[in-house]
Amino acid sequence: MIPNLNLVPFVSVDHMMKLVLRVGVERFLAELADYVEEDFRRWEAFDKTPRVASHSAEGVIELMPTSDGRVYGFKYVNGHPKNTKEGRQTVTAFGVLAEVDTGYPVLLTEMTILTALRTAATSAVAARHLAPRDASCMAIIGNGAQAEFQALAFKALLGIRDIRLYDIDPVATEKCVRNLQGQGLRITACRSTEEAVEGAHIITTVTADKQYATILTDNMVGAGVHINAVGGDCPGKTELHRDILLRSDIFVEYTPQTRIEGEIQQLAADHPVTELWQVMTGQAAGRRDARQITLFDSVGFAVEDFSALRYVRDKLAGTGLHQDLDLLADPDEPRDLFGMILRAAKPSPVGEAA
Amino acid sequence: MIPNLNLVPFVSVDHMMKLVLRVGVERFLAELADYVEEDFRRWEAFDKTPRVASHSAEGVIELMPTSDGRVYGFKYVNGHPKNTKEGRQTVTAFGVLAEVDTGYPVLLTEMTILTALRTAATSAVAARHLAPRDASCMAIIGNGAQAEFQALAFKALLGIRDIRLYDIDPVATEKCVRNLQGQGLRITACRSTEEAVEGAHIITTVTADKQYATILTDNMVGAGVHINAVGGDCPGKTELHRDILLRSDIFVEYTPQTRIEGEIQQLAADHPVTELWQVMTGQAAGRRDARQITLFDSVGFAVEDFSALRYVRDKLAGTGLHQDLDLLADPDEPRDLFGMILRAAKPSPVGEAA
Repeated sequence: MIPNLNLVPFVSVDHMMKLVLRVGVERFLAELADYVEEDFRRWEAFDKTPRVASHSAEGVIELMPTSDGRVYGFKYVNGHPKNTKEGRQTVTAFGVLAEVDTGYPVLLTEMTILTALRTAATSAVAARHLAPRDASCMAIIGNGAQAEFQALAFKALLGIRDIRLYDIDPVATEKCVRNLQGQGLRITACRSTEEAVEGAHIITTVTADKQYATILTDNMVGAGVHINAVGGDCPGKTELHRDILLRSDIFVEYTPQTRIEGEIQQLAADHPVTELWQVMTGQAAGRRDARQITLFDSVGFAVEDFSALRYVRDKLAGTGLHQDLDLLADPDEPRDLFGMILRAAKPSPVGEAA
Repeated sequence: MIPNLNLVPFVSVDHMMKLVLRVGVERFLAELADYVEEDFRRWEAFDKTPRVASHSAEGVIELMPTSDGRVYGFKYVNGHPKNTKEGRQTVTAFGVLAEVDTGYPVLLTEMTILTALRTAATSAVAARHLAPRDASCMAIIGNGAQAEFQALAFKALLGIRDIRLYDIDPVATEKCVRNLQGQGLRITACRSTEEAVEGAHIITTVTADKQYATILTDNMVGAGVHINAVGGDCPGKTELHRDILLRSDIFVEYTPQTRIEGEIQQLAADHPVTELWQVMTGQAAGRRDARQITLFDSVGFAVEDFSALRYVRDKLAGTGLHQDLDLLADPDEPRDLFGMILRAAKPSPVGEAA
C-alpha cells in the first residue's frame, strides 16, 4: 500500500526562507546553478514551449510548463510593475512538480523567492561560460529585488569581489548596499551608469520598467565585457541600445521565446543567436577571445524553474520544512468519488484513526 | 493598509467535501450550473485558448487557463486511465483564481471533486437547452466516478426521475446503485447498453477507456434523443459510432479544442457544429423539433472551471472551510526581497507579534 497518496508537500514563504538560510544563500545559489547546468546539458530531453501568457493593461500572468518525460513542472508567475506602489510585489510566483507517470503532484512551493534565486543562478551559470576568465568586478544597473541575488551568485560561482551599484532611485541602491554588507564583497554606490560600469568586467542590467528603455548606450560598453541582461523580459521591454546588440555575440535560453521577449526583439527575426545549452555541450563556441563582447539575453525559461523545483524537492528531504496539503482526492475505491463524499457526512466510528 | 497580502485561502479535499455537504449536492450542482450558464452567456468576454497539454505514454497533464479581464483562473488536471490499478484516481485536479489587476492569487482549491461537479453541471446546463422538453428518463453508460454526479445534476436541473445504468464492469454499476439510493431517483441496473437505452430520453456516455471505442452504435439511438457524450475527451478517445454523429445536430463548448479531443475528431474538420453559448444567447437554434437527435460533444473547457472557481470563492465566504496558505512573499518594502530573508534569520524582538 502506498501511504498518503492524497498529500502534497507545500513549501511556504516562511519555510523557503528557513531552507535558504539553513543551506546558506551562496551554497544554495551554487548548488541550484549546478541543477540548472545539468538540465541545460540535457536540453533536448525537455518538452519545451513558450510560456502561456495572459496580458492585461497592468501586467501579465503566465504559466510556464515543461517536462523531461519523467517529471513535469510548471510555474505560475505574474509581472505587474505598478504593484509596488500598493505595497505588493511586481513578481510573485508559485510552482508545482508532478510525476509524469501518474500525473500526481509531488511538490507545491512558493516561487517568489525561488525565482529570484534561480534567475541569479542562471545568470551566473551563463557567465561561467561567457564572461572573461579573470572577471572580478561587476556593475549592477537596477538595484531592486533581484540585485543582491545577482551579486551573491556571481561571487559564489565566478569569484566576483567588486560590485558597483547604480539605480535611478538612490533609496534602492542604499537598500542594496545595506543588505550586501558583511557578505565579503567590496560595494561601491555610484551616481550614474557611466560611473558604475567603469572597470567592470561584467555588466548586469536588471531594471523593472515595463517599456523600451536605454539603460546602456553603446559608448558605455568596452571591448571584452560580458553583459548579463536580465531586466528586458517581456514584449515591449528592453534595456540595451540596439548598437550594443550589433557589436555583441548573443546567447539566449530558448530562441522562440527570446525573439518575442528579449533584447533581440530590436533585431531582425533571423539575427544569429546561440542557445546557451549548445555552449555547455560543446556544440557551439562561448567566449572565443578577450576583446569579444558577449551578451546573455536572459528572459527566464521554464527549464530553469524545473531545475529549481527539482533542487528544492531534493533539498527538502529530512528538513521538515514543509506542510502536507490534503490536495488530492483519495477515495478507498478510485471510481467511488461520490461515495467518498457521502461517507464524509457520517461521523467516524469510535476508535477509527482520524 | 491591506492585511495579509501574502495569504491565499486553500480549500482541501476535506473542506470541499464539507462545503458540498453543507450546501447539499443537488443545490451545489444547480447553483454551479447557473454560474456556468452566466459565464457561457458572456462567452466573448473570455480570453480563450485550447488547454496546454503534455502527453506521455501513460496519460496527459494539462493546464487550462482563462480570464474574463477581471479575474484569471487556471486548472491543473491529469488523465491517467491506468492509475486506478494502483489505487490512484484517473483524474486529479487543483485550480487557482487570481486578480488580473495585481496578478495575486486569491484562491487555491482541490478540483478533483469540483471537476466532477462542474462536468455534471455543464452537461445538465447543455441538456436544459437541448434535451426533449419532458425528458424524465436517462441512461448512463459507464458507471465510474462521474456517473452519480451526472444523475443528480440531471435530477436537479431537468427533473429526471428514472436512471438506467450500464457498465461493462457490474461492480461499477453496483457501486452506483448503492450511492444513488435514497436520492429520490428510480434506478435500474441493466445488463447491456441496448437494455439501458430502452425508453431513455437522454443518453449519457461516460466511459474511461483511452482509445477509440464504440459504446453506442447507430441502431441504439432513436429519434428525439439527446446524447450527452462526456467520456470521449482526448485525442484518440471517442465513444460514439460515426453514423450517430452524421444523424445528429452537434453542440460543442469551444470548437478548436473539440475538433482535437471530442467525438467530432471522427468527422471532417469543417463539419458544422454549434457552440453552446450561441444557443444560450439566442444566436443559434438549440432543439427545434421532437424527432431531432441532439448531441452535446463535451470535452470540458477552461471557462467551466473558471465558473466553478468563482462559485467556490463566493460560497466559501463566512464558512471557515479553508486554511490560509503563506504562499506569496510579502516584504515590508516590495523591492527588499533579500532583506526579508536576512531578517528571517534574526529572532523576533521581544514583544513583537509573530
